[in-house]
Amino acid sequence: MTEKDTDQQADYVEPNKAFERDTRYIETRITRDGADGFPVEAGRYRLVVAYACPWANRAIIVRRLLGLEDAISMGVCGPTHDKRSWTFDLDPGEVDPVLGIPRLQDAYFKRFPDYPKGITVPAIVDIPSGAVVTNDFPQITIDFSLEWTDFHRDGAPQLYPEDLRPEIDEVNAVVYKDVNNGVYRCGFAGSQESYEAAYDQLFSRLDWLSDRLANQRYLVGDTITEADVRLFTTLARFDAVYHGHFKCNREKLSEMPVLWAYARDLFQTPGFGDSTNFEQIKAHYYKVHRDVNPSGIVPKGPDLANWHTPHGRDALGGRPFGDGTPPVPLG
Amino acid sequence: MTEKDTDQQADYVEPNKAFERDTRYIETRITRDGADGFPVEAGRYRLVVAYACPWANRAIIVRRLLGLEDAISMGVCGPTHDKRSWTFDLDPGEVDPVLGIPRLQDAYFKRFPDYPKGITVPAIVDIPSGAVVTNDFPQITIDFSLEWTDFHRDGAPQLYPEDLRPEIDEVNAVVYKDVNNGVYRCGFAGSQESYEAAYDQLFSRLDWLSDRLANQRYLVGDTITEADVRLFTTLARFDAVYHGHFKCNREKLSEMPVLWAYARDLFQTPGFGDSTNFEQIKAHYYKVHRDVNPSGIVPKGPDLANWHTPHGRDALGGRPFGDGTPPVPLG
Repeated sequence: MTEKDTDQQADYVEPNKAFERDTRYIETRITRDGADGFPVEAGRYRLVVAYACPWANRAIIVRRLLGLEDAISMGVCGPTHDKRSWTFDLDPGEVDPVLGIPRLQDAYFKRFPDYPKGITVPAIVDIPSGAVVTNDFPQITIDFSLEWTDFHRDGAPQLYPEDLRPEIDEVNAVVYKDVNNGVYRCGFAGSQESYEAAYDQLFSRLDWLSDRLANQRYLVGDTITEADVRLFTTLARFDAVYHGHFKCNREKLSEMPVLWAYARDLFQTPGFGDSTNFEQIKAHYYKVHRDVNPSGIVPKGPDLANWHTPHGRDALGGRPFGDGTPPVPLG
Repeated sequence: MTEKDTDQQADYVEPNKAFERDTRYIETRITRDGADGFPVEAGRYRLVVAYACPWANRAIIVRRLLGLEDAISMGVCGPTHDKRSWTFDLDPGEVDPVLGIPRLQDAYFKRFPDYPKGITVPAIVDIPSGAVVTNDFPQITIDFSLEWTDFHRDGAPQLYPEDLRPEIDEVNAVVYKDVNNGVYRCGFAGSQESYEAAYDQLFSRLDWLSDRLANQRYLVGDTITEADVRLFTTLARFDAVYHGHFKCNREKLSEMPVLWAYARDLFQTPGFGDSTNFEQIKAHYYKVHRDVNPSGIVPKGPDLANWHTPHGRDALGGRPFGDGTPPVPLG
């Protein structure tokens, strides 16, 4: 989530303008060599997320697929936020039990007292100092894969394997532009023209993805990779919010057979569906974006039980976790 | 369309309130006996409509099914309107060529100089005086059927046959409450509670209708009646606007097999589909209800070509026009 999502509740749509995401994040990295002053270390950092947010959802999924739960604890913000910050309103006393703060902005201000930009999730906080290390979401999941290997669970998959990186990067770039961010460009468009351009770009990219996935179980190679995680968190929100709230309505995901089966396949894989919270997703978008949905009323539909129906994608082969194993199912 | 639709563009949703439609219309009737001062007479009256409006759409359909085109001319307002009035913005010079007025309110004010309520369509205007006779939409179509018989085309159907009236009235009453007006109660709800109550009522009534229509081609009897016309104009708007704009999103109509086939059957019958203008429907709702859709951006989807797909309802039998015939297809 970028600043547009936290800056001011009624300021997502700028009349007569296309939506432009501000992508200047805090780029400090947590690495094995600690080059930026923050070395990989079990128990030192706290990942702060909201289940509502697609960018944070990526980190939730990757942390779980890799089995980093014991090494990196997780703080969870509620689905809605006010003008300035995501808050720990789901926790007892509305305070994060580890960081001891009610608002995520407290950790941003510990790092930069006059931090002028949006208070976004995911963010990783250095527990000893209480300061945010990074909110650079595309780097966070890559670093989970490459820098935190000493703490991966046995059987953790290779989500960013070296030989596939160029192809993963290439797919991620177009998926980000046309799909992950494309849905926001539809929903926050300030003019009919910019909306229609974003809509055309989104659906032609979805058609492209659908063709790519027709005979291939995963986006790159024959195992789940970072590319699948990134596409999944957008698809998971498609019928629940993007179709109606963001006017991404050529079809529902459930009307696009290949992508719908692909999305259900992932959803039914440990680490994906159990990291997805439709109720919080719906509450977030419909209650926070008041200049798109002034009433704040959250639609009762659609019925999302269909995510649990058989997908038939096993017939395409593929090795979901490669030489590894799935995470242990929750609950 | 009632006053809520014309009163003020940003005042459809009243916070914390359920939507209540003001149903006090101008109840003057045009009858064979001229009891209210307005006798049936070919060429004397002008039906003013907008293709966007479901209540006006009923009158467009019934006029055409009965072949009243030569007896009652039709003025067409554009899909959007401002705070005070529907306008003849589609006509050359933006003036109705018969009434000579730019705004429908001019005809209302001719009748009642201080008319305080909404300027609604359908309205029937007495051409000689330029004054509105009635905007009482449920009565207008019934009177077309029962009072204008001398001017019906050869082969005009019986849309309100005497023996079926009690059943038609009964169906119309619940369809109006839960469906025709029910979608507005979803979309203009001022609270989560009133929205959810309207949503539940709408979809349980649609389930009821679906059961009723599973083995029966039309709602009442085995021919098209007034009951079908009234349900149709809501179903025709379902996927185009009510699903997203009014949050009637348990399913799309196209995901409810019986109702979807029923709606397509009617759509493909002369008089229905050729009286339906999806572009104007979408433009109206999305551009006029700015407190539901502040940007005024009109969704590009859904693809509505699916209305032309085979429906298979002929297998249920039924005699669409009874002993009559369909109207001549439009060129």
